[in-house]
Amino acid sequence: MRYSLLAGGKRIRPALCIAACELFGGTEEMAMPSACALEMIHTMSLIHDDLPCMDNDDLRRGKPTNHKIFGEYTAVLAGDALLAFAFEHIATATRGVPSGKVVRVIAEVAKAIGPKGLAAGQVVDIANEKNANVDLELLEYIHLHKTAALLECSVVSGAILGGASDEQVEKLRVFARCNGLLFQVVDDILDVTRSSEELGKTAGKDLLADKATYPKLLGLEKAREFALELKHKALNQLSEFDESRAAPLYGLTEYIASRQN
Amino acid sequence: MRYSLLAGGKRIRPALCIAACELFGGTEEMAMPSACALEMIHTMSLIHDDLPCMDNDDLRRGKPTNHKIFGEYTAVLAGDALLAFAFEHIATATRGVPSGKVVRVIAEVAKAIGPKGLAAGQVVDIANEKNANVDLELLEYIHLHKTAALLECSVVSGAILGGASDEQVEKLRVFARCNGLLFQVVDDILDVTRSSEELGKTAGKDLLADKATYPKLLGLEKAREFALELKHKALNQLSEFDESRAAPLYGLTEYIASRQN
Repeated sequence: MRYSLLAGGKRIRPALCIAACELFGGTEEMAMPSACALEMIHTMSLIHDDLPCMDNDDLRRGKPTNHKIFGEYTAVLAGDALLAFAFEHIATATRGVPSGKVVRVIAEVAKAIGPKGLAAGQVVDIANEKNANVDLELLEYIHLHKTAALLECSVVSGAILGGASDEQVEKLRVFARCNGLLFQVVDDILDVTRSSEELGKTAGKDLLADKATYPKLLGLEKAREFALELKHKALNQLSEFDESRAAPLYGLTEYIASRQN
Repeated sequence: MRYSLLAGGKRIRPALCIAACELFGGTEEMAMPSACALEMIHTMSLIHDDLPCMDNDDLRRGKPTNHKIFGEYTAVLAGDALLAFAFEHIATATRGVPSGKVVRVIAEVAKAIGPKGLAAGQVVDIANEKNANVDLELLEYIHLHKTAALLECSVVSGAILGGASDEQVEKLRVFARCNGLLFQVVDDILDVTRSSEELGKTAGKDLLADKATYPKLLGLEKAREFALELKHKALNQLSEFDESRAAPLYGLTEYIASRQN
């Protein structure tokens, strides 16, 4: 659990959670347990995603994947334990927030990774790995579930903890979904334009596996245009919020859009 | 998810949860979402436990195991999704219970299956599969974590939902731990005394794998005596509770002690 959780990573989900909480006047302390839990869950999804029966990846964040070091059964159980501990941590370590909100956060997080969230995205993704006819709609379904759902619940959890209204939560949902797709479009672009060394993971893997990606379906230039479009749509959602408080969210979108690994 | 969840099974954990809730005047309705969640989590642990990289089992509850039907990656993800959905279900479907208690139940359940619960038991169990020197202490560690932890949190969750005091919760913890060990001792005994057909799963597997079991460490007769001892210790914990309300708990212990598959 420690090996994969502390192997680096961009900590985008915790940052989004804390930023969304602070956007509504909440404190970092209120959001920290949920922020940590979201990183545990993200890590768990990577450990399971890398397994031989899934993507069969040897490298992650520049290091050997969990099952390469500890063996397959430990990797499965480390993932299971991270998932369970994430919920334990939200439930036991959250301070200064009414229990009703803690329950709402747990519901949001659980939904994002369950049968209508991350797991659904993974199943559809792997099931279509050898499907040569994946279109944009199916690709969007995969990324909305596999990537955007966890980003969405990161932002939404923070917003709930910070005291956002339902309407404000909805704006941030759209913001997060756009960022989720943006993240994936950028990932697809990096996979075909960067080396393994630059990425800290195996590059060119999508191409090799003949996997559906935005550059493959749209061409590299149109994929870049789509990324720009998503970036603007995401940023537009923030227009009604206090600009200085929303600065970390603007910054994260800029970061996702311009990241190089 | 449906295939394994609805493949039968003894529903001991849901029954314990509901019985414990009613013991303190709570209703079945209050406990039902947690009860269902506990069965989802139990099912998830079986799906992952049966994987080729774990126990590599072909049969479960008289049917082919999940990965035999749906493939390995779907089995991993079905387990992950069941785990996540369990927490979603407790958080969204529990009615008539203050949020603070729902948070406590989520903490109990999560702790029981995380790095100090079920997952720990599984790791230690598999790591010692080929260890010829497993003693009673290590065997007890494995079963307290692998089996008893989930039974314990089933009883404790029900008790919390029903309004038990801390002292009453502690009595039920001991009750559940004894039942957990009892369950495993009986399982070990059945494995060497019953056929695969009678069990609905592969019999004699422990013997074949030269796995540490109570019959192996104590002999069959002493193992049977130990089972009786655990049964009495479990039932003693119930002496201060209303006898008619505690009847389902007495009954469950009798059932665990005398089950034939």
